[in-house]
Amino acid sequence: MTLSSFGDKFTRKTGILELMEDLAEAAAFPADASGGPLCMLGGGNPARIPEVERVWRSRMGALLADEAGFGRLVGAYDSADGMSAFRSSLASLFKKEYGWEVGPENVCVTNGSQIAVWYLLNLLSGPDAKGRRRRILFPLMPEYVGYADQAVHEDVFVSCKPRIELSGDFHFKYYADLEGAEAVLRSEPIGGILVSRPTNPSGNVLTDAEVARLAALAARYDVPLITDNAYGLPFPGIVFTEAAPYWDPSIVLSMSLSKIGLPSTRTGIIVARKEIIAALSATNAIASLATGTIGQAIAEPLIASGEILDLSRNAVKPYYLAKRDKALSLMRSLFAGMPIRVHQSEGAIFMWLWFDGLPIDSRELYRRLKARSVMVLSGDYFSFGSFADGTSCSAWDHPRRCIRINYSSPDDQVERGLSIIAEEARKAYGEKPR
Amino acid sequence: MTLSSFGDKFTRKTGILELMEDLAEAAAFPADASGGPLCMLGGGNPARIPEVERVWRSRMGALLADEAGFGRLVGAYDSADGMSAFRSSLASLFKKEYGWEVGPENVCVTNGSQIAVWYLLNLLSGPDAKGRRRRILFPLMPEYVGYADQAVHEDVFVSCKPRIELSGDFHFKYYADLEGAEAVLRSEPIGGILVSRPTNPSGNVLTDAEVARLAALAARYDVPLITDNAYGLPFPGIVFTEAAPYWDPSIVLSMSLSKIGLPSTRTGIIVARKEIIAALSATNAIASLATGTIGQAIAEPLIASGEILDLSRNAVKPYYLAKRDKALSLMRSLFAGMPIRVHQSEGAIFMWLWFDGLPIDSRELYRRLKARSVMVLSGDYFSFGSFADGTSCSAWDHPRRCIRINYSSPDDQVERGLSIIAEEARKAYGEKPR
Repeated sequence: MTLSSFGDKFTRKTGILELMEDLAEAAAFPADASGGPLCMLGGGNPARIPEVERVWRSRMGALLADEAGFGRLVGAYDSADGMSAFRSSLASLFKKEYGWEVGPENVCVTNGSQIAVWYLLNLLSGPDAKGRRRRILFPLMPEYVGYADQAVHEDVFVSCKPRIELSGDFHFKYYADLEGAEAVLRSEPIGGILVSRPTNPSGNVLTDAEVARLAALAARYDVPLITDNAYGLPFPGIVFTEAAPYWDPSIVLSMSLSKIGLPSTRTGIIVARKEIIAALSATNAIASLATGTIGQAIAEPLIASGEILDLSRNAVKPYYLAKRDKALSLMRSLFAGMPIRVHQSEGAIFMWLWFDGLPIDSRELYRRLKARSVMVLSGDYFSFGSFADGTSCSAWDHPRRCIRINYSSPDDQVERGLSIIAEEARKAYGEKPR
Repeated sequence: MTLSSFGDKFTRKTGILELMEDLAEAAAFPADASGGPLCMLGGGNPARIPEVERVWRSRMGALLADEAGFGRLVGAYDSADGMSAFRSSLASLFKKEYGWEVGPENVCVTNGSQIAVWYLLNLLSGPDAKGRRRRILFPLMPEYVGYADQAVHEDVFVSCKPRIELSGDFHFKYYADLEGAEAVLRSEPIGGILVSRPTNPSGNVLTDAEVARLAALAARYDVPLITDNAYGLPFPGIVFTEAAPYWDPSIVLSMSLSKIGLPSTRTGIIVARKEIIAALSATNAIASLATGTIGQAIAEPLIASGEILDLSRNAVKPYYLAKRDKALSLMRSLFAGMPIRVHQSEGAIFMWLWFDGLPIDSRELYRRLKARSVMVLSGDYFSFGSFADGTSCSAWDHPRRCIRINYSSPDDQVERGLSIIAEEARKAYGEKPR
């Protein structure tokens, strides 16, 4: 069997595939648990929040109680843009909460938001009809590793290094290089701009001012600004700053039911202007035929009634906030005396740890942690593509001194994991560079 | 906004998109029902079979009754190849029923089988590392319209015209041109061979001899033979001939839970040799992140116990067989005296009607039927790509005298729909060609 170049690209051992294999290996734990009980701080699984689980279970019970309705629900193909009631309720919620001028024609539902972004990246990048290579601009690297391998065409990601601002003795925050982003837009054909907000992996939330400037750039250069809002407002609402959600016709907002407890239903949501929704629906029809309905049917009444906002505000956000505070306070004491900083935890379910001047890189730190049954993600995975000057993002040293942890794991795993991270960091800082 | 060439290709108004819009329009019925009550004989929705619905509803009830289990089920991402228990049970079923040498490593589950075929077609077609264009070979056109737009690259589908054998005064059957298929394999780099069996749209089932020869060709030329088994054995089992299912390591078998009543869960299944499963899982991880679990969890115990075979044999197949027989006997009387033939209905939920010598083409027939609220699919959609001699499949006259009907619609719609088809055909045959 000979694969096409498309086949070669998607089966190459890179980023997400290594991570998936690693997670699968960890899932087989504790069969080979030589290093102690597993501390799973890798991966992106959301926490299981009892109050949230009860809501979804009760909703499924209600669907099941309606015999004919359940039959219709499971027995019919949805259309490729999603259930009409779901799209209408969602559009009404956005209109009511935020005043956005959107209707059901501005919403497309896909089998998870990952594939929606996959569609978008490829609709917008690679050679165009005039033979020009259009690239995707990431105004702030590091970004979500899940994008790294998504483009069908090679070398279509161009990024800007952030400004790093230290705060106090324990935190730092990234700021987008907006001048750099504009310079890229001026100098080459860009197909789309992509940011996650809150950002996976760093927990950064782009400020309202940054978003306003990016949206203005997007409008000026007629290039969609894809904003991956998987952790954001109004649901799941894992945002700890006052930053406001934003949409205008230059924005393609990506959302999901995954982080509000339904990753298994694969329900991704895109809010965008009509032509973009039409392009996405068309691609979804060709590639996937139809969108799954169960997640939509479970969540729709809560979206229609606005209860999903209460669930986000009163159950999801406080849960993560408490976990975050606990982890931060643990780290402050465990990391004392070492030049480790944590990115301002402004949202999402991750923390981004920067081991400034660590003599070993994050891959080696990852290996030492894994040997002690602590799973984390090495920071270099989150730096991909090229910078505007042509240098490779993977050659950038900063993310090679960072790791991402998922702080939503059970408390005992987070505590033990952080202690072992502190121990290994102390050992590494004590060592000479090899 | 400027789309890439990928974007231009997937948003072009062709085949499946026209059909989707038409179906959406029909779904809005009867708001503008000027032609009488809707007879929906288009689309591919399976029938709602009460016995089958009861089984899935009871399974969902069982999942829901296990509070912790339900929480785990909906609250966790599956891996990109599917649930381990589902893959194991399925492999065991195949081994036990058919003696196939397969294990869980030979199974990958995706969000519907449409996207699995999309992945496969693109992993196998287009330019390869040596710059050669690899094409996909369809040994028997007409084929499923859902493939028509799936390739990222242009002009990568090459097909063979079937031999048409008349049987009696009312039927005909397609036979694959295996010499033609081998000639293509000899003359150019082919990435994969694709057949649906039972065939959508014709209801043909490739004979065991045809499959054996195609599998031998696939093995000899080291090219996977993708066999889309969406309607086939062991489930949903909508097969009315004695044709046996077949798998060997040269085969990539595609299946689904859609036609056994769960289209909404988007559960596609691929059975193939390990390297192909690894390539598919990798592509699925990058594009879709994870596979939905609800369909897998609902169906797994029935696959483990073999009950899914009973459901297929005792509920699904008899239901469709009775519908088929009723439709065939109606057509025999309604079409009497006209040179209309129906493809041997050997499986699937469609019938393929050939209006031999009809002075109008199938698009015009479709329009006249639509004006009378009868939705069918025009045959030309199912003839796409090029023949081996370079001529376009869309220029072939035969499918332009054919329509596809879904005979699984409610009896009153099928009856009224067929009467109106007979009336319009009679009018058309009486007319002079324009």
